[in-house]
Amino acid sequence: MKIAPLSGFPEWLPAERIVEQRILDTLRSTFELHGFAGIETRAVEPLDQLLRKGETSKEVYLLRRLQGDERDSELGLHFDLTVPLARYVLENAGKLEFPFKRYQMQKVWRGERPQDGRYREFVQADVDIIGTDTLAFHHEIELPLVMVDALGKLPIPRVIVRASNRKVAQGFYEAIGIQDVDETLRVADKLDKVGPQVVAEMLQERVGATEEQVRLALALADIYGADASVVDHVRELGYTSELLEQGLEELAALLEGANDLLPGSVVADLKIARGLDYYTGTVYESTLVGHEDLGSVCSGGRYDSLASDGKRVYPGVGLSIGVSRLVSRVINRGLVKATRSVPTAVLVAVNNEEERRHAERTAMALRRRGIPADVSPNSSKFGKQIRFADRRGIPYVWFNTEEGEQVKDIRSGEQIAADPATWKPAEEDLYPRLVSESE
Amino acid sequence: MKIAPLSGFPEWLPAERIVEQRILDTLRSTFELHGFAGIETRAVEPLDQLLRKGETSKEVYLLRRLQGDERDSELGLHFDLTVPLARYVLENAGKLEFPFKRYQMQKVWRGERPQDGRYREFVQADVDIIGTDTLAFHHEIELPLVMVDALGKLPIPRVIVRASNRKVAQGFYEAIGIQDVDETLRVADKLDKVGPQVVAEMLQERVGATEEQVRLALALADIYGADASVVDHVRELGYTSELLEQGLEELAALLEGANDLLPGSVVADLKIARGLDYYTGTVYESTLVGHEDLGSVCSGGRYDSLASDGKRVYPGVGLSIGVSRLVSRVINRGLVKATRSVPTAVLVAVNNEEERRHAERTAMALRRRGIPADVSPNSSKFGKQIRFADRRGIPYVWFNTEEGEQVKDIRSGEQIAADPATWKPAEEDLYPRLVSESE
Repeated sequence: MKIAPLSGFPEWLPAERIVEQRILDTLRSTFELHGFAGIETRAVEPLDQLLRKGETSKEVYLLRRLQGDERDSELGLHFDLTVPLARYVLENAGKLEFPFKRYQMQKVWRGERPQDGRYREFVQADVDIIGTDTLAFHHEIELPLVMVDALGKLPIPRVIVRASNRKVAQGFYEAIGIQDVDETLRVADKLDKVGPQVVAEMLQERVGATEEQVRLALALADIYGADASVVDHVRELGYTSELLEQGLEELAALLEGANDLLPGSVVADLKIARGLDYYTGTVYESTLVGHEDLGSVCSGGRYDSLASDGKRVYPGVGLSIGVSRLVSRVINRGLVKATRSVPTAVLVAVNNEEERRHAERTAMALRRRGIPADVSPNSSKFGKQIRFADRRGIPYVWFNTEEGEQVKDIRSGEQIAADPATWKPAEEDLYPRLVSESE
Repeated sequence: MKIAPLSGFPEWLPAERIVEQRILDTLRSTFELHGFAGIETRAVEPLDQLLRKGETSKEVYLLRRLQGDERDSELGLHFDLTVPLARYVLENAGKLEFPFKRYQMQKVWRGERPQDGRYREFVQADVDIIGTDTLAFHHEIELPLVMVDALGKLPIPRVIVRASNRKVAQGFYEAIGIQDVDETLRVADKLDKVGPQVVAEMLQERVGATEEQVRLALALADIYGADASVVDHVRELGYTSELLEQGLEELAALLEGANDLLPGSVVADLKIARGLDYYTGTVYESTLVGHEDLGSVCSGGRYDSLASDGKRVYPGVGLSIGVSRLVSRVINRGLVKATRSVPTAVLVAVNNEEERRHAERTAMALRRRGIPADVSPNSSKFGKQIRFADRRGIPYVWFNTEEGEQVKDIRSGEQIAADPATWKPAEEDLYPRLVSESE
């Protein structure tokens, strides 16, 4: 049997999986506190659906049945959760209530070359709010606050949501006389990766920008700040248009609204372009403070048409957390660890095989009261049974002694009389906890 | 955009997803109470890994990258969670503690023709206990009790675990002089589907069984019962062998042990054969009382060699719940429903857009106290805002009135003064609940 890890397909050991699971649970419960309904979509979509956007076509994994005799319709694995959402909304439009607030946490697949923070199989956690025909602007303030709330509960470095507005960029480029706005956005999106020099050259080559246009575009991208002064800085560049003004109003409203409700949650960063051309309003990226090299861990934006069925258009705003990217960094850098590798809080020791049934009943009594309990798989010497618990990080071992039932905290060595119908472990020992580096 | 459901790829509406999610949560928490650690494995395995067993080859979905220029190593989607477990155990053997108790709840894929209860994409929930070189028999009693505990907490009809023992079948067939035991097991496995007449013919044709051998094989398959009397019935057939006796001892120990700890949990049903030839001890199937047409919802058994790395052999015992099969039946027959389609317990009404910020703060205060809250997306007439809540099943609507903050139970119409820092919904209204048909 050939056994080898597959590059780009991360897997976790049990203690690491506890970290991932806790992070997913925290995201889910926060999304639900904010009223988002959870859905799951099938892993596959028809190929024509997946290729609608064109540019990601090389990343798609196609399926074929090993011995499929009939010609199967072409199916591929989804590469994000937005394409499936668009299809789900159209398929079920008559049965959904709009605005439809949904979260979705699933694996997605991309046949890309794996590298640090980039995988072929990874988990995304998406929240989107979908309207019919119209969707109020206030949802563009609501969504990053959901994510800041969710990410703020995780034992990870602080996350800052950086935002811009597609109308600002487009309005400004048009006002300074740049023709090919989409290509300018795609070039501007590379600023963080390649730096201003290269972007300047690319703007001249690809969109025929003049030196002055390049200077203005880079000056716009340089604007950053947490309050309405960013709007002033844009105006100081000396250009205006209706679209630009509308974008600046929205940007100011986002900064004021978000930071009033949750201070320090959102900053404006006008170099954010987001390459995808379906965004039409606010666009978001987010970085983990001290881990900027990881890239954005939560991105998205406002789109005026997620989908359309001919009768109605479905606008929306969405944000997507790259859970695997986040979890990998947290685990691989040892930022957070689980206090044990199993859920078990108590190992019930077995004196000898004749008394196994008694130990089983003790464990059952503990479980009935919500205490994760396991029974020693063997009745070897107590020292060995305690080591069995210790190797897994199980904090308590239960004994049936001549003096009656007793439980030992194997960390302190303290052993006390206990009744499985009433004894409780320390609150913090009931489930595995995540502890961060600093603890 | 072509929109069509794909046959064999079930998806759920938000209220239905709540049913599935609750069932998964209950399974998970029960597995954890019993000390099983959760893992997830990648969705893909190398093709040679997937085809080791041969017989399921036609079911495998192969992957290829749409524009893969290099020759990708052949990968396929896993069709169960046992093959990935075997690979995971070998890959991580040095980092795992044995006996390794793991649960795993993931989607699997099979390119089969879809039919009622059979899907191309479905969720399995597996628990396995893996040893190194040896694994004590008592785990064969432990495992079905975990499943009965888990399934018994679900709002579904009662599940009965039926068990047999491969040693009994093999020992008996050998004792009555049947040569091809594996083929006999495969034929016997079809008894429920095709009936005794056809099985009799197949045994004569395929394994050359005499009329007397057929009579005895069918008599064995007919034995059913919850106590040690089943052992007597086998002995009354008048044949014996060392293997048969060992199997009968194990079967008696399973019935006695399981039903002593959890009365009514396990019955012996000697027609259970389980077609797969890697089982070597107890084999299990389980049916939903009143839904026998659905087939087994939880199956598995003892195997002496899950995997081997040349140095060590990994025996185990495992059971797998067909979650999608169970959930589909429960949803499609309306056996269970969620009390609402969103997590939201309280909708905070908005008097006018100027007061939206105030409503947001009310919702934030409720969420901080663990109460799922949403803010009305519009400030239309209160009647419309109440209908917004009603259509989603949200039980409470919060108003900021001239007499102060108030909350209305929209089912009873009762409206009371309330403070977002202290008010609580009725315990049963905090989260969506599952209610069964009879309620």
